[in-house]
Amino acid sequence: MKLNSHPSGRHFLQIPGPSPVPDRILRAISLPTIDHRGPEFGELGLRVLAGLQQVFNTRHPVVVYPASGTGAWEAALANTMSPGDAVLMYETGHFASLWKKMAERLSLRPEFIGLPGAEGWRHGVDAEAIERRLRADAGHTIKAVCVVHNETSTGVTSDIAAVRRAIDAAGHPALLMVDTISGLACADFRHDEWGIDVSISGSQKGLMLPPGISFNALSPKALGASKAAKLPRSFWAWDEIVEMNKSGYWPYTPNTNLLYGLSEALDMLLEQGLDAVFARHQRWAEGVRAAVRAWGLPIQCADASVYSPVLTGVITPAGVDADALRQLIHSRFDLSLGTGLGKVKGRMFRIGHLGDSNDLTLVATVAGVEMGLKLHGVPIAGSGTQALMDHFAAHPQPKTLRAAA
Amino acid sequence: MKLNSHPSGRHFLQIPGPSPVPDRILRAISLPTIDHRGPEFGELGLRVLAGLQQVFNTRHPVVVYPASGTGAWEAALANTMSPGDAVLMYETGHFASLWKKMAERLSLRPEFIGLPGAEGWRHGVDAEAIERRLRADAGHTIKAVCVVHNETSTGVTSDIAAVRRAIDAAGHPALLMVDTISGLACADFRHDEWGIDVSISGSQKGLMLPPGISFNALSPKALGASKAAKLPRSFWAWDEIVEMNKSGYWPYTPNTNLLYGLSEALDMLLEQGLDAVFARHQRWAEGVRAAVRAWGLPIQCADASVYSPVLTGVITPAGVDADALRQLIHSRFDLSLGTGLGKVKGRMFRIGHLGDSNDLTLVATVAGVEMGLKLHGVPIAGSGTQALMDHFAAHPQPKTLRAAA
Amino acid sequence: MKLNSHPSGRHFLQIPGPSPVPDRILRAISLPTIDHRGPEFGELGLRVLAGLQQVFNTRHPVVVYPASGTGAWEAALANTMSPGDAVLMYETGHFASLWKKMAERLSLRPEFIGLPGAEGWRHGVDAEAIERRLRADAGHTIKAVCVVHNETSTGVTSDIAAVRRAIDAAGHPALLMVDTISGLACADFRHDEWGIDVSISGSQKGLMLPPGISFNALSPKALGASKAAKLPRSFWAWDEIVEMNKSGYWPYTPNTNLLYGLSEALDMLLEQGLDAVFARHQRWAEGVRAAVRAWGLPIQCADASVYSPVLTGVITPAGVDADALRQLIHSRFDLSLGTGLGKVKGRMFRIGHLGDSNDLTLVATVAGVEMGLKLHGVPIAGSGTQALMDHFAAHPQPKTLRAAA
Amino acid sequence: MKLNSHPSGRHFLQIPGPSPVPDRILRAISLPTIDHRGPEFGELGLRVLAGLQQVFNTRHPVVVYPASGTGAWEAALANTMSPGDAVLMYETGHFASLWKKMAERLSLRPEFIGLPGAEGWRHGVDAEAIERRLRADAGHTIKAVCVVHNETSTGVTSDIAAVRRAIDAAGHPALLMVDTISGLACADFRHDEWGIDVSISGSQKGLMLPPGISFNALSPKALGASKAAKLPRSFWAWDEIVEMNKSGYWPYTPNTNLLYGLSEALDMLLEQGLDAVFARHQRWAEGVRAAVRAWGLPIQCADASVYSPVLTGVITPAGVDADALRQLIHSRFDLSLGTGLGKVKGRMFRIGHLGDSNDLTLVATVAGVEMGLKLHGVPIAGSGTQALMDHFAAHPQPKTLRAAA
Repeated sequence: MKLNSHPSGRHFLQIPGPSPVPDRILRAISLPTIDHRGPEFGELGLRVLAGLQQVFNTRHPVVVYPASGTGAWEAALANTMSPGDAVLMYETGHFASLWKKMAERLSLRPEFIGLPGAEGWRHGVDAEAIERRLRADAGHTIKAVCVVHNETSTGVTSDIAAVRRAIDAAGHPALLMVDTISGLACADFRHDEWGIDVSISGSQKGLMLPPGISFNALSPKALGASKAAKLPRSFWAWDEIVEMNKSGYWPYTPNTNLLYGLSEALDMLLEQGLDAVFARHQRWAEGVRAAVRAWGLPIQCADASVYSPVLTGVITPAGVDADALRQLIHSRFDLSLGTGLGKVKGRMFRIGHLGDSNDLTLVATVAGVEMGLKLHGVPIAGSGTQALMDHFAAHPQPKTLRAAA
Repeated sequence: MKLNSHPSGRHFLQIPGPSPVPDRILRAISLPTIDHRGPEFGELGLRVLAGLQQVFNTRHPVVVYPASGTGAWEAALANTMSPGDAVLMYETGHFASLWKKMAERLSLRPEFIGLPGAEGWRHGVDAEAIERRLRADAGHTIKAVCVVHNETSTGVTSDIAAVRRAIDAAGHPALLMVDTISGLACADFRHDEWGIDVSISGSQKGLMLPPGISFNALSPKALGASKAAKLPRSFWAWDEIVEMNKSGYWPYTPNTNLLYGLSEALDMLLEQGLDAVFARHQRWAEGVRAAVRAWGLPIQCADASVYSPVLTGVITPAGVDADALRQLIHSRFDLSLGTGLGKVKGRMFRIGHLGDSNDLTLVATVAGVEMGLKLHGVPIAGSGTQALMDHFAAHPQPKTLRAAA
Repeated sequence: MKLNSHPSGRHFLQIPGPSPVPDRILRAISLPTIDHRGPEFGELGLRVLAGLQQVFNTRHPVVVYPASGTGAWEAALANTMSPGDAVLMYETGHFASLWKKMAERLSLRPEFIGLPGAEGWRHGVDAEAIERRLRADAGHTIKAVCVVHNETSTGVTSDIAAVRRAIDAAGHPALLMVDTISGLACADFRHDEWGIDVSISGSQKGLMLPPGISFNALSPKALGASKAAKLPRSFWAWDEIVEMNKSGYWPYTPNTNLLYGLSEALDMLLEQGLDAVFARHQRWAEGVRAAVRAWGLPIQCADASVYSPVLTGVITPAGVDADALRQLIHSRFDLSLGTGLGKVKGRMFRIGHLGDSNDLTLVATVAGVEMGLKLHGVPIAGSGTQALMDHFAAHPQPKTLRAAA
Repeated sequence: MKLNSHPSGRHFLQIPGPSPVPDRILRAISLPTIDHRGPEFGELGLRVLAGLQQVFNTRHPVVVYPASGTGAWEAALANTMSPGDAVLMYETGHFASLWKKMAERLSLRPEFIGLPGAEGWRHGVDAEAIERRLRADAGHTIKAVCVVHNETSTGVTSDIAAVRRAIDAAGHPALLMVDTISGLACADFRHDEWGIDVSISGSQKGLMLPPGISFNALSPKALGASKAAKLPRSFWAWDEIVEMNKSGYWPYTPNTNLLYGLSEALDMLLEQGLDAVFARHQRWAEGVRAAVRAWGLPIQCADASVYSPVLTGVITPAGVDADALRQLIHSRFDLSLGTGLGKVKGRMFRIGHLGDSNDLTLVATVAGVEMGLKLHGVPIAGSGTQALMDHFAAHPQPKTLRAAA
């Protein structure tokens, strides 16, 4: 294995996940695999499970799957639902749509609400719409409300506390399930305080790990629901995992080496402090949006109150193939950007600014995009690179986020 | 991350998987994570998929899951079966039993045949019994025959070709599904030639990787069956994966860094040649059994024709708690052995001799067990260490398996 | 070991060496240490020695020291000179001065010529001055001419072929010794064709390795001189090393793990082709100089014909403490720049653009400097970042130096 | 880089250095190289220098060279001696002889005392002989006494405190220089208490690092002597290094990545405690000697009071080519043993039992030798493997040196 497609220097991985994996974590995952039934493993298991509770802001169990994030979506549904159950899902973008498609494949009856056409892909979850729908469901046939916290396909971070308030206001017993695959450890997240029943996340975004493990944070209500749920499940079943996790072990072979990485990631995040982690994402995001505005290009997220701190979607002018642009940028500047997905394919691209990054990495990213725009013949209003530099110069990071003097 | 429970030197990981991960593979998995939608990834994807076909001995698709081996069991059933379907499963040990339990949780109706009590855990699959049962199933209600190639809990490697012949002799249309999680890349395996419909495997045994990815090798008949099968499935669904794999990509985020390791593992196995790989496992296994015989302890596998080249189960004398023995050995000699599982818990232990090992590692292992037996007060007939040394001295490995002169 | 002074993201190591070490090389040096007397090592030794000959452009022996570059300076002198010998050295900057100081400590009589004051630190070697001095040395008391190929303290790459012609024109028998510690594998270098007797280099620059090994490339004439030279030497002595190297071994314990890295580095450089390596350094250097000009700041090298492709020295305006500026940039932007050394301390800083780098990394570097200049209150004429972006956009790298499409 | 000469499993590196490098250290040395003039480096420098003082048991400076151990020998002489100085060296084996040869090459006048022929290679330093010689040197022409603490070529650990007492008893002002290249961090060592003026050591033995850095621990008297010493020196000169080390930096480019490893190694050693480290070496050594005695082969060290805890030399019967035996063992069992050097070439081999090892690794080693002896036709009296197993079983390591329960 060489990874030698790139002729020289470091690749700029600026997709909204997998995010760049820090060297400390890459070394950690290369330590020798140990016996997943031995005493050393049990210590590791307890340590990462406790750390995850801090990151999810919960006192309840967090289930770790040796599977990618898509699996954790399936796990949330398979543990709590029965065939034919109605679930209310909110269309915020491609990933909300994929989750809805999954619900269908799992024999559920998802109801997909949201703004019509592609317009919904530029806004967050409308909690009032959810409240209205739930109030109308007098018979409580809806078993769950499923929303995406940070929609990775668009760069919109919805207000989950508002969704909780909407469900409560409607007096509806539906479970609240939240996909925070790309939100966790980038944006504020409070599993318990927000009354979430199942939070779904993955390793390759804010946790700065390679893909391969994923999570369900549970509420007592979700655990209760799982006892009655009838969808067939085995690999995803919470019961045995939660039971065995009490001693730090798993019922089947866990993904040992990624758990090493998780242990290191938790150390890094908790040493720095989650508030500091959220603050650096916000600061980066503001800078990148300043750059996009300087170019005169529209930001995919049309509502400033729900801008994502994780990624920024950039809409290309009519007639410009955003993927051809991305390809040019990749070929010339060794910079990977996120593609437009689903309804916005070819119409926008995404700049990831999450995880293990810093000011200069983002300046390089924006400069690479800017050079690409020019080379591709896309007219731009001004220098986004300059705007970003001005932003970073004017807004110093807090002392704790600077390099040692 | 430090892994510092062990005060000095290398741990001896002699469980039957995860097997020791070679340094080349550990370095490979620590390379930076790349864009799973970029051009470099597509090359990697095509390379590992082609290599896997060589290892499974198949010209048909091999599906790679970003999940542990248990998931691949579920995938095999979920893609081909409908709720309530009858499956004929053969009890060879703990893993066959877990698979059967999974089939129940997935709403199938497994019929579990085999020898009564714990006796079945000392023998391989009785192909004649399968043939008899299938002949009796005139209505073809049995949809699949599920057997374990190498039963990891006992050290028995069943004759899969015989099972194929039995099904054919019965003229029965059931699918043949084979768990070769611990058999693949240790023992001869021929997906196409043996007429297997779904072969299930995992990364952490003969492939010498950490746990975290798993496999379904398919037959055209299995692919056909998946079109009609009614079990709900999404994450495990073959259709989209097989389609996207044609260009080297996956429909969801693959386990990039373990795929790096897989690429390296395939290079190592195919450079050495699978026949040489099988030969070294056979030679090691014969040596370890010679040691067990010298101790005068019974081998768990009671039928010499199906001894496993992967692991050897050793039965402890009545009154000896095999787990207390294992714990003593671990504490004194930093050697991890496999525990007795299920019906044989506390009655036996397992010595793994698979993957990235060699003569001296196995001598050390056997010596550690032997010292432990004595310290635990277990009477032994003679020196297993000496027997193993005599075996290795008398049976040189072929030149291609020796260190460079 | 954590290296956790940097709160987030990758550090930008833009000093003129150590240069950023590629991931492939870092993994290579972490492979297990082997027996330096075993057969595997001999193969490694022969491989790296052959590769080094290609990089030095020589058919004669290259000696590898398990020591840093300073040691290789000492080795060149200790093997060829006798106490009290006169050597003609040319002052191009701090490293030429340190080498001269070393000659004094080793009891030689260095004669240091060059332009007066700090002016000589802005120009290359004046071959005519050398010729004049050698012509004046009718008695041939000068035993060696010592020059620096790429002066790391200033960013000046002297014309070595011209020095050779000067020596020949003077008909003088002095040895020609060339320090190419930071030039090798960045700028064109021809040990044999340029008639060099001893070329000195190190690992941590163009070879992209960590510091710790260094080199003497020899000529037959240098080997001859070493037989008569009287300076005491043992560790540095060529004779035993050259003899043992014939079989790929060393008389003492070599730096095994850095040799792994060297093997990987040679693969990378020779796969890409040295001409392509030189071309990418030239292109980067032109871009960085365009940026410095846009700022309106003087480049340390005052002679465009000897601009260095490896680094660019930037003179700060009078009254600006270049080191305070560097510290601000490091603290705010996690970017390391080279300090002004010796005669130019506090008056300039150095931007490294060598080894494993690429366009966006250099844009980030220049942007970091530019933000720092502004924050420090240094008036600049225009945007160097923009100038660099324009340069890179207008001058695409050759196809072979682009990322895979 | 692949290191793929070994077909399967871990190589057994049982030479008396380089010793096996622990995984934690290999990962540490693969972290990215940083600026050796930056703030993070200064912290690293101070940390490793303080840790080294603990390991050498000294309050005085320890100099770290970016060079292999041979260089540290040269440094000790070059810093303290003048051309033509007489030094008293004691012949304990090959490395003492090489050091003496080096003294000659450096223009010193070494006087080599010891037992005649190869007999001296079976005993330690005779302190009384040193005292006699020093008493005879009424004019104090002898400037230094140079002895090897642990002679790596034979397996003899001399009594350094006795040498100190001998010098004091003679009232002689000579410096005491001690090579503890293979003794440090394996056997008790007390630089200050034993009145050593220069202790010389290297990285690749008890410190468990790859080769590439080496050490001089100094006394105030040695530092004083260096001011008057006349041997030319520059790279090795203590003065500038000691001065710059006060702030954690070096005058030239240090071997950054091996210093990462050193930091990790010091953590490992000091966490475990040096007394525990010495105790495990003693226990291993006793076991290995029990094995050699069981074979009926003579141990190279003929004096039980100076047996080395680091390695054991084994004399082969007359007519047996020890190197042919070693080659057979390497080829068949992937086990590297130390060769006989100098006067005992072909007559003995050496088993290293140092650094990051443990009981089963040594059982494997002894078993590999035993199988090799038999295959080579060397008659042995009994089973050394059994003797070693009996020893380890009968002498449990202390609790702190066991694997976690």
